[in-house]
Amino acid sequence: MSWLNFFRSQKPEAPSASAAKDRLQIILAHERVSRDGDDFLPKLQKELLEVVARYVKIDADKVKVDLERGQGMSTLAIGVELPGNGTAKRSAA
Amino acid sequence: MSWLNFFRSQKPEAPSASAAKDRLQIILAHERVSRDGDDFLPKLQKELLEVVARYVKIDADKVKVDLERGQGMSTLAIGVELPGNGTAKRSAA
Repeated sequence: MSWLNFFRSQKPEAPSASAAKDRLQIILAHERVSRDGDDFLPKLQKELLEVVARYVKIDADKVKVDLERGQGMSTLAIGVELPGNGTAKRSAA
Repeated sequence: MSWLNFFRSQKPEAPSASAAKDRLQIILAHERVSRDGDDFLPKLQKELLEVVARYVKIDADKVKVDLERGQGMSTLAIGVELPGNGTAKRSAA
């Protein structure tokens, strides 16, 4: 499956000017078959955002987090609306 | 959309014993509207795996990376097959 095509298909046909923003989505899916597999997604969340924040400015109130837990699987979805110019903080050295 | 339901629907009906493994999928989608939005996904890849490796043992040859770049959007998909017991390295202190 092409994730590029998948996410393109999720985009609204003609986003209004206000809706058209630089956006980053981070989705984690942890499939646990073994009973003792630890559910570490909630612990990962903070550190993942810290890594991303090294590359692009992140506004805490522009971050949406959705954690779902089920039998043998957990998912963590982090949506970040990036500042308009989305310029990377860490320019190529 | 529920990511938990989405990833559940991706799972084979009755995985053979050998296929049933603890697995972690990390998918990033970076939507760039502004022309100067830097494509930082390739730079993120290594650091994201370093964060995950603090929580679970990662075998370098069990990591599959798929980077796709298109007009105004890039996606990075990292699939990690986790060791059988998938026990977290960093147990609750």
